Amino acid sequence: MQTLSPLPQYLTKRYHGWKATSYAENSSWFRRLANEGQRPRAMVISCCDSRVHVTSIFGADSGEFFIHRNIANLVPPYAPDGLQHGTSAAIEYAVQALKVAHLIVVGHTRCGGVAGCHAMCSGAAPELEEKTSFVGRWMDILRPGYDRVKDLPAEDQVAALEREAVLVSIENLMTFPFVRAAVESGELSLHALVNDIAEGTLLQAEEGGRRWVQI
Amino acid sequence: MQTLSPLPQYLTKRYHGWKATSYAENSSWFRRLANEGQRPRAMVISCCDSRVHVTSIFGADSGEFFIHRNIANLVPPYAPDGLQHGTSAAIEYAVQALKVAHLIVVGHTRCGGVAGCHAMCSGAAPELEEKTSFVGRWMDILRPGYDRVKDLPAEDQVAALEREAVLVSIENLMTFPFVRAAVESGELSLHALVNDIAEGTLLQAEEGGRRWVQI
Amino acid sequence: MQTLSPLPQYLTKRYHGWKATSYAENSSWFRRLANEGQRPRAMVISCCDSRVHVTSIFGADSGEFFIHRNIANLVPPYAPDGLQHGTSAAIEYAVQALKVAHLIVVGHTRCGGVAGCHAMCSGAAPELEEKTSFVGRWMDILRPGYDRVKDLPAEDQVAALEREAVLVSIENLMTFPFVRAAVESGELSLHALVNDIAEGTLLQAEEGGRRWVQI
Amino acid sequence: MQTLSPLPQYLTKRYHGWKATSYAENSSWFRRLANEGQRPRAMVISCCDSRVHVTSIFGADSGEFFIHRNIANLVPPYAPDGLQHGTSAAIEYAVQALKVAHLIVVGHTRCGGVAGCHAMCSGAAPELEEKTSFVGRWMDILRPGYDRVKDLPAEDQVAALEREAVLVSIENLMTFPFVRAAVESGELSLHALVNDIAEGTLLQAEEGGRRWVQI
Repeated sequence: MQTLSPLPQYLTKRYHGWKATSYAENSSWFRRLANEGQRPRAMVISCCDSRVHVTSIFGADSGEFFIHRNIANLVPPYAPDGLQHGTSAAIEYAVQALKVAHLIVVGHTRCGGVAGCHAMCSGAAPELEEKTSFVGRWMDILRPGYDRVKDLPAEDQVAALEREAVLVSIENLMTFPFVRAAVESGELSLHALVNDIAEGTLLQAEEGGRRWVQI
Repeated sequence: MQTLSPLPQYLTKRYHGWKATSYAENSSWFRRLANEGQRPRAMVISCCDSRVHVTSIFGADSGEFFIHRNIANLVPPYAPDGLQHGTSAAIEYAVQALKVAHLIVVGHTRCGGVAGCHAMCSGAAPELEEKTSFVGRWMDILRPGYDRVKDLPAEDQVAALEREAVLVSIENLMTFPFVRAAVESGELSLHALVNDIAEGTLLQAEEGGRRWVQI
Repeated sequence: MQTLSPLPQYLTKRYHGWKATSYAENSSWFRRLANEGQRPRAMVISCCDSRVHVTSIFGADSGEFFIHRNIANLVPPYAPDGLQHGTSAAIEYAVQALKVAHLIVVGHTRCGGVAGCHAMCSGAAPELEEKTSFVGRWMDILRPGYDRVKDLPAEDQVAALEREAVLVSIENLMTFPFVRAAVESGELSLHALVNDIAEGTLLQAEEGGRRWVQI
Repeated sequence: MQTLSPLPQYLTKRYHGWKATSYAENSSWFRRLANEGQRPRAMVISCCDSRVHVTSIFGADSGEFFIHRNIANLVPPYAPDGLQHGTSAAIEYAVQALKVAHLIVVGHTRCGGVAGCHAMCSGAAPELEEKTSFVGRWMDILRPGYDRVKDLPAEDQVAALEREAVLVSIENLMTFPFVRAAVESGELSLHALVNDIAEGTLLQAEEGGRRWVQI
């Protein structure tokens, strides 16, 4: 593997700065977290997008959130077929092993993945339909959402699909037997949010997703 | 969907605090990032573990890192089989659409996923071998790493496997034709790190992973 | 032009070292920045003084800061008179073309330009009053600041004038219609700092400059 | 002045990191530099562009370079007219007060200012011809350079104009009596460079600018 490169120097410098300040000031907490194991209160599923920072938005410190990030914050349906499902593995670990109390799906505006899904489903991006397109196949998860927004005025569809990316994920979460059981027994609560990355607002789904209200 | 709950109040309060301070102070930057699109310099693949905060460690702000987080920071091999591959979709989007310059895999010590893989491969966790175990099937990705550490002294195996979780991912990354092409043309560099979450140190792989050096 | 000399060898050597290390490790990022254009987040106005390194202080890498450096980090008032205004051109380019989100004026202690201005205004440096003194005419921009500090105890005046060099610049920035409009619409924020070059501390102006607080 | 904002938090954090590491390790040097005054070996004139980092390229530490940065690294002709000339003030201070041994003008490829000048002079950017355009009036300094490149093949003109931005500045430097005197007495040497920001190469002007050679 001659493919590895040393870390860019500016990151090395910043890391040394973090080590000498944030780490040094909190080393006892970091050591305790390491020795006693994590015990996060919530799992967050959000997008890989560089503009979405749930730890900042919620002032979360090390140890608080178990965070899975993928393209468009999607959860696939329950499929115990023996194949690799990274998102399902993260959910299983959070709910079964860590027993998180909350599971929060955070969508966001201007999502490239959602825009791609809209283009694909409306026929504008045939390359995403190809079998070899990982993004296309991943965004297939959101097709049921597209069917629910396709009759809206054209200018409203993408924003509606961003919300569907959260609602479809919540629906799919409930197909996992251990998620459903934990929700029904009151051990786990599900939360659906969309972050407007320009205005910094947070919309929360109410009434099963029929209304979105700014919190 | 009567399954949705309102956000816990402590998170709502922290969000309002963030909105009135960090957002307000940077609203011009957030709006600009929203309007002009993200242009992250690097993709980071790290673990969902609540104790791993790469944005803190590297002093990164909104817009800098495109971040995929899954159990044990794993990358599966290239498999354009038309099935859903969330990790591969994130890598495809980062390298092909966003054209990130760096791809950094950040492992960490005390990783529950790696410990589970070690238990599974050494016969101590038969439940993870079941077809229905999402965590088990996901950790199958790391089996080639287990084969390389199983003859080490028992007390060294898990730590070695944590490093293998990064090295196997780097190897698998190179099986993606578009990753290999970008690395070979000098448009993308790969970086392999392990974060000791107790001591706050960062180890970097050198010589193709034969040596790990504290930076 | 027989006036050109080859670069001193110690600089050539250091350059070759940089090229083989920092550049080589980051060539993908440099090429991407070159091809896609810069998109700096902030403009920094600081002094030419060799002891002021804002990129180090803020861990900034290539592409982050658009930096104008002049004697005493001064901004003249808005004067669209058709004459050459290098500082105004830099501000216009940063705000109008690059649409930076932040404009940070960084003053510093032990500033030779500020000391010269104090000497000139207090009658101790008549040579700076001459029409042919470029430094003197440039420091005229700071005369309104001198008027605000001249009644302080003598030993406090120069330090106060160093802060005035930042505050006068902020005041003058607000006389540029496009700066004022961007600030008022929330697209641009202004920041006033003084760097103590001996102690490495950073003072930030609060309450419109009536207080300076160590950050 | 209700216009001031607090520094974005990510910069505050990075600053604290710098203070605890780079500053702490070098505090004796910083204090000595502060107490004894700067004694830089060279003045550098370079562009404000965020992609041009002469201190990195030349491995320069605090105290080494007196740096003036403006749009397109331009020096106007000597004009002791009693008006404000920020660039001329910086040159006067460096040569007369600090007695630097080298004065290095560093141009660069993909310069937005040079591209704007080319557009203006070729009739493609009438808005830059307006009296109120600070960028346009500043780029007037480079008009003599445009006259020398305008008969080249169209695709070569901008790159040639980037080099002219350095050569015109060197010519104008020699119109300053104190610069000419210092050069002729051997106390000051002038250097003309262009940095290719994509490839990291440095071109040096030889034979009075008739040839540019990679160093």
